[in-house]
Amino acid sequence: MTTQSTTARAAVRPRDAEAFGALYAQVQQFYAHQMQLLDFGECERWAATFTEDATFEVPTLPEPVVGRPALAAATGRTAAQLAASGTRHRHFIGMFDVSEQPDDTVRVRSYAIVYTSPAGGESQVHRVCVCDDVLVRVVGELRVASRVVTRDDLA
Amino acid sequence: MTTQSTTARAAVRPRDAEAFGALYAQVQQFYAHQMQLLDFGECERWAATFTEDATFEVPTLPEPVVGRPALAAATGRTAAQLAASGTRHRHFIGMFDVSEQPDDTVRVRSYAIVYTSPAGGESQVHRVCVCDDVLVRVVGELRVASRVVTRDDLA
Amino acid sequence: MTTQSTTARAAVRPRDAEAFGALYAQVQQFYAHQMQLLDFGECERWAATFTEDATFEVPTLPEPVVGRPALAAATGRTAAQLAASGTRHRHFIGMFDVSEQPDDTVRVRSYAIVYTSPAGGESQVHRVCVCDDVLVRVVGELRVASRVVTRDDLA
Repeated sequence: MTTQSTTARAAVRPRDAEAFGALYAQVQQFYAHQMQLLDFGECERWAATFTEDATFEVPTLPEPVVGRPALAAATGRTAAQLAASGTRHRHFIGMFDVSEQPDDTVRVRSYAIVYTSPAGGESQVHRVCVCDDVLVRVVGELRVASRVVTRDDLA
Repeated sequence: MTTQSTTARAAVRPRDAEAFGALYAQVQQFYAHQMQLLDFGECERWAATFTEDATFEVPTLPEPVVGRPALAAATGRTAAQLAASGTRHRHFIGMFDVSEQPDDTVRVRSYAIVYTSPAGGESQVHRVCVCDDVLVRVVGELRVASRVVTRDDLA
Repeated sequence: MTTQSTTARAAVRPRDAEAFGALYAQVQQFYAHQMQLLDFGECERWAATFTEDATFEVPTLPEPVVGRPALAAATGRTAAQLAASGTRHRHFIGMFDVSEQPDDTVRVRSYAIVYTSPAGGESQVHRVCVCDDVLVRVVGELRVASRVVTRDDLA
């Protein structure tokens, strides 16, 4: 069917495939839980899903946010603004391109769609973002060591 | 990198990770199939993905829908209205936060975005919902025993 | 809880469940990577995720696109138009209903939401699509052998 057999990498062995499947599920569960913490305003618990010295870059801030206290504070300000305006945000993240690195970190590029719903109004798309993360394992649990977010409307 | 090693729970063992990966995939497959049955108007088959005595709560109904016949009837009415108006709905569900309970049930909190497409018109976001389910295993297959849906625009 | 025990298919054995979990993760990783190649304008690499004689049907083309060169060319035209107009598209695909076939192919029905973001403008939903694929394994890697896309606004 194709002529690329000789250049393709070796066939995936079942055990490797199951190990990747386990990692992939862990990554998905991690992001689902992390984003739900954010959307439900659990700022401290959300910040705890990052390493203590994590960096977070977004295009709307002049420099990266560094460390859990700064992350929790930035998120808390946003949560307070949303609450004051009667608006809900949902971060729907997916499309995970997951690759384990030789240094045991896990690189994940994903898409994150942010939806906004004013109370009593129409829900709509707020932002379309690409999220480039480096995850590390801390006693078996995933943590974000660095995150770089880009926004399609600003690119 | 962090100081939390002593308080974190024990590292995930490979076998446990693969069992969770298997469950996580099963959950995703279950929801994808269930929502596709709904969107393609297969109301009876959709209702059969719930337990016979399942409860379904949504903010727009005064009391929970209980049991497969009532579930199929409610869904059939919506499907008929959509068909009459030439409109398609798609339920895009994801962001699964999955936790097995000591009683062997599986709790899943997810986000569901409903898109609407009038024939010949512009597709757009219709609803942004959070879905809290209790799943049970029936001869190895997942079934919804209870579902509570909230809508961001009504919260 | 239910009366269907006798009619349900046999309980899923752990080993089967883990093999399905591995496949399901592989499928998700495949689509995430494929769609990211498309959205980042890597047209040749995107085309290489199809078999050499793959067919691709969309409602806006009078006949199927066949083969990698034609796929890359069609995608390249769209990428050039988007770049010229300063607009970004993101294909967010998910809701995978995955079934292995007796002939060792894998059928996948999924939903794909396309978001559009004009530079400096508002991101919004562009298209809501259903994607019916037949995947084959080439030396352990998945490839699309045929794809049929439908659009909800044209259905």
